[in-house]
Amino acid sequence: MKGEKLHLLKIGGRIIDDPAARASALEYFLSIPGRKLLIHGGGRRASELSQRLGIVPQMVDGRRITDAAALEVVVMVYAGLFNKELVAQLQAKGCHAIGLTGADGDTIRARKRPIGAIDYGFAGDIERVDAQALGALLEAGFTPVCCPITHDGTGQLLNTNADTIAASLAVALATRYTVHLDYAFERPGVLLDASDDTSLLGQLDPTTFRQLRAEGAIHTGMLPKLDNAFLAARAEVTVRIGNIQTLEDEQATRIASV
Amino acid sequence: MKGEKLHLLKIGGRIIDDPAARASALEYFLSIPGRKLLIHGGGRRASELSQRLGIVPQMVDGRRITDAAALEVVVMVYAGLFNKELVAQLQAKGCHAIGLTGADGDTIRARKRPIGAIDYGFAGDIERVDAQALGALLEAGFTPVCCPITHDGTGQLLNTNADTIAASLAVALATRYTVHLDYAFERPGVLLDASDDTSLLGQLDPTTFRQLRAEGAIHTGMLPKLDNAFLAARAEVTVRIGNIQTLEDEQATRIASV
Repeated sequence: MKGEKLHLLKIGGRIIDDPAARASALEYFLSIPGRKLLIHGGGRRASELSQRLGIVPQMVDGRRITDAAALEVVVMVYAGLFNKELVAQLQAKGCHAIGLTGADGDTIRARKRPIGAIDYGFAGDIERVDAQALGALLEAGFTPVCCPITHDGTGQLLNTNADTIAASLAVALATRYTVHLDYAFERPGVLLDASDDTSLLGQLDPTTFRQLRAEGAIHTGMLPKLDNAFLAARAEVTVRIGNIQTLEDEQATRIASV
Repeated sequence: MKGEKLHLLKIGGRIIDDPAARASALEYFLSIPGRKLLIHGGGRRASELSQRLGIVPQMVDGRRITDAAALEVVVMVYAGLFNKELVAQLQAKGCHAIGLTGADGDTIRARKRPIGAIDYGFAGDIERVDAQALGALLEAGFTPVCCPITHDGTGQLLNTNADTIAASLAVALATRYTVHLDYAFERPGVLLDASDDTSLLGQLDPTTFRQLRAEGAIHTGMLPKLDNAFLAARAEVTVRIGNIQTLEDEQATRIASV
């Protein structure tokens, strides 16, 4: 670990749907010097498009199922509309962005989630990230903009959680770069009380995380994000979670590896 | 003119909508050795999606107008669904495909068509192709898959004719490579009688083209494609027009530069 710095920013939650929040996230990303990579989540537009198309979201136990119709919608919105809008906006500011799904350059290969108690449909669990292909793009001067669509290597596109993509990219790229990963969403960071922004944790280590989790003190919606964050931290990636303001002000929650 | 060979294939017309025709086009593309680049058109799915969304196509004098709603649809279908399906299918066969709009890597910059007698909306006329950026991707081992979406450099995506994109890419890349361009569509090539496949021309030179055009002997739908083909031919690109069968059998119409 390992030469040049690489800064990854994942933007999700309401940042994507709110034009002002999105603009400030892009300004923050543009201000990052050196090699960098943007990962974006989905936002509400996929649900809006589904509704307009009369596609009824398939839910099982509160989890969304990606059936064939839903997959078409997320590919159109994430890989098409939203990814290309971000790329064009970044290019307009002189950032040499290039938009990617996991199929592009075979950068992220996933496996259709096995059917267990629930059939999640075309949900993809990441099998491997091609750090060499991403490295080739970075070395050629491009700034990858990654969306939450992957593929299985047999021609099937898949829908993959953007937080997981961010962590998997960070872990894979940490073999070649000194990687920093920022998770940006609408909250200032990890909160002890989800309704109170002043309960922000400056740092979170694995032991404290286990304790807080056992006590039910961490909002369940945060748990997958934190699992991903610790996964990256264990691979010697420095990780922070916050909103653009707390990330800029160095107030966001730092994820400690031990 | 200029070292290594580069083979461009543009697929359009019914090839895109017909799964069997698409599969044979991809087989042909996969069989091309060395550096190559695929350009695809739109197909009917954008119209189908518009219909499902209740978007009424805006037409003026028989020409489609790309208003804001129509632009969203073509970005979703061309850059999202169709481009990513092709990339995943090519990757499944070991071709290191990477999908691009003109915004990605700033590869194709266009200008919103000036409002004259007709306001074409978000239609983009190509201003410049970045052969250096495309060359960097080719040299890094990627096979670009280009869709008919461009950008204007200020964050605006634009809809650009795929035949024009193919010719503009060929002309720009001819400064670095020995470029061959195949236009593949559903017809065997340039026909003297659009209803008779045996009226296929083996070759077409500019003088004969001018004569046939003046006589009204060439189907008007073919004229923009032929103008693009001659544009490329004048830049020392070898150009052929046909369907996959005639291209494979060397029966497709060759476009002569003089």
